[in-house]
Amino acid sequence: MITVLSGGIGGSRFLQGLARVADPHEITVIVNTGDDTDFYGLRVCPDLDIVTYALAGLVDEEKGWGVRGDTFHFLEAMARFGRETWFNLGDRDLATHLQRTLLLRQGLSLSEVVATMARAFGIELRLLPMSDDPVPTKVTTEAGVLGFQEYLVKRGARDRVLAVEYAGVEAAAPAPGVIEAILDARAVIVAPSNPIGSIGPILALPGVRQAVRRTRARVAAVSPVVEGRAFQPPTAEMMDGLGLEVSAYGVARLYKDFIDLMVIDRADAHLEAKIRELGVDVLVTGAVMSGPEERAALARETLGALLC
Amino acid sequence: MITVLSGGIGGSRFLQGLARVADPHEITVIVNTGDDTDFYGLRVCPDLDIVTYALAGLVDEEKGWGVRGDTFHFLEAMARFGRETWFNLGDRDLATHLQRTLLLRQGLSLSEVVATMARAFGIELRLLPMSDDPVPTKVTTEAGVLGFQEYLVKRGARDRVLAVEYAGVEAAAPAPGVIEAILDARAVIVAPSNPIGSIGPILALPGVRQAVRRTRARVAAVSPVVEGRAFQPPTAEMMDGLGLEVSAYGVARLYKDFIDLMVIDRADAHLEAKIRELGVDVLVTGAVMSGPEERAALARETLGALLC
Repeated sequence: MITVLSGGIGGSRFLQGLARVADPHEITVIVNTGDDTDFYGLRVCPDLDIVTYALAGLVDEEKGWGVRGDTFHFLEAMARFGRETWFNLGDRDLATHLQRTLLLRQGLSLSEVVATMARAFGIELRLLPMSDDPVPTKVTTEAGVLGFQEYLVKRGARDRVLAVEYAGVEAAAPAPGVIEAILDARAVIVAPSNPIGSIGPILALPGVRQAVRRTRARVAAVSPVVEGRAFQPPTAEMMDGLGLEVSAYGVARLYKDFIDLMVIDRADAHLEAKIRELGVDVLVTGAVMSGPEERAALARETLGALLC
Repeated sequence: MITVLSGGIGGSRFLQGLARVADPHEITVIVNTGDDTDFYGLRVCPDLDIVTYALAGLVDEEKGWGVRGDTFHFLEAMARFGRETWFNLGDRDLATHLQRTLLLRQGLSLSEVVATMARAFGIELRLLPMSDDPVPTKVTTEAGVLGFQEYLVKRGARDRVLAVEYAGVEAAAPAPGVIEAILDARAVIVAPSNPIGSIGPILALPGVRQAVRRTRARVAAVSPVVEGRAFQPPTAEMMDGLGLEVSAYGVARLYKDFIDLMVIDRADAHLEAKIRELGVDVLVTGAVMSGPEERAALARETLGALLC
C-alpha cells in the first residue's frame, strides 16, 4: 500500500500521476479537511472535492479546482438575496456539496460520506478525510482572524499572516484508517501541497506525526516550492508570514523529523547539499507537474526512489 | 384592494395582466401551497415560484414555470448519486429554494419568507401563501396515493384520479392577512387556476370559503377551461376523475355559492344561460391569455365587470 498525505490542487496533480504508475487499489490518500467550511448551510470540502474531481477526470485542469465546463448560475442568483457570493460554487459542483450535506444530516460520518461519494465518482483509490471532526484552520492576519477560505478566496491571500491555528485539533481524532494507512504502508508520500495550510493540519492530529515517524515505510515529501515560488497560493504567503524560508529547503526543514527523502526540482539542485545536511536523502528530478506525462514521471521517480 | 386567489401557471398569467391594468400596490395574491414539497431537503413552492418569476419578468414564458434561460447542470449532476431527478430544478431556480430553506430554518414563517423574497425580486404586489402550515395535496389514483408533484410531474398526470385530499387542512390556519384580504377587498378574483389542485386547497382552509361568501366585495372567477379543454394539466384530469364536467359550467358549479360573476371565453358563449341558472352573472370575453395584451384585456374586463 502507498499512502499519500494531500491537500488540494498540487496534491491532486501528483495523485493523477501516481494513479497512472501504481495500482489505484493500492493507494490510500489522506486528505486535508482543515479548510472545510459551510456555505449556505452546505458542507464544502475543497481539498476532497479537488482530489475527487481530478481523479474522476472531471476537474477544470486550468484552474485546478471545480468541474470542467461548470456554470455559476446558482451563485449569480444568490446575489439577488444579498448573500455573499465570493466562494466559487459551480452548478455541477453544488450537487456534490448538497449530496454530502444530506448524507451527513442522515448521520453518516464524513469518512462514510467520502467513501460513498468516491464510489459514485468511480474512484478506485481509497480516499480518507484526515478526520471526521471539524478542525478549522484559523489564519491570524493583520486584518484579524480569518477562516481559511475567507483568507484565501474572499481576500485573495493578501493579508500578512501572523499565525496559523488548527482549531480544536487536540480534541480531534484521525479518521478511521488514517493511522493504520500510515503505519502499514510500504511507502508514504507527502504530496506537493501547502505545508502549513494542507499538510500541517493532517500532521497536527493526535498520533499522525508520530505514525509518520514510526512507520517502517520510507517517507518522501515532494516539494511544493520550486525556485522559491510555490505552485499555488497561499503556500508562499503562509510560509513567509510564519518566518519560514520559502524554498524546498524550508519545506524539508519542516518535515525533517519524519522524511527519508525530499523530492526537489532540477532548478533547485543547488539546495541538495543543504537538505542532505538535515539528514534527508534528496531526489532531484522534474517537479513542476505541468502535464499528465510530467505528473506520471514525478510519481514514478518518487516511488522508485522510495521503494528501491 | 383587489384580492386574487391563485395557483401557478394560469393564475400567474392572469396576474401579469392585472398588474398592468391596476395599481400593483393594491393587489393581494393568495397563493396555493398545497403542491409544495421537499426535494433534496429543499423547500419547493411551485405556485409561489411561478407567480414570483412571472411577476418579476423572469419566467420561462413558453413553459410557464422556471426561470427563462435556466440551465439544469445541478440536477444532471445529482443523477450521479442515484438521486431522483424528475423534478425540474433549474440552477437559477435552485437559489430560490435554498434561500427559502435557509430562511425557514432560521425560524421565519413561510409568510415572512415570501414577503422577504418577493421584495428581493422587486415585486410590488402583496404575495401571501395560503397558509404557513403544510397542507399537502394527496391524489388517490389507481396507482395509489401520490403527492401532487409526483402525480403531475413524475407520472405526467396519467393515473386516473379517484379522490383528492388536502391533508391536515382542518388543523391548518390561513396565513396572516388571508381572511382580511378577502373580507376587506373591493374585488375578489379567483384566477383561471385548477379548481381542485390549486383553488380547492385555499378554499378548504378554515374560514376561507366563508370569508369569500361573506365579503362585501363582488367575487369573480375566471374559467381555466375553454371549449372543454383546460389550459394546463392536471385541471381536466382531476375534474374528470372526480366526476365533474370539464367545462366553464363545471367550474361555475364548484364556485356557485360564493361567486357573483363567471368570466368565460367567447367560444363558450353557449354556456352563458346555463351558468346564469346557477344564479351567477356571466362575462363573455377573450379568456385564452395567449399574450401580454390578451392578459391585460382579460384582467381589465374582469375588473370592469366587478367594479361597475
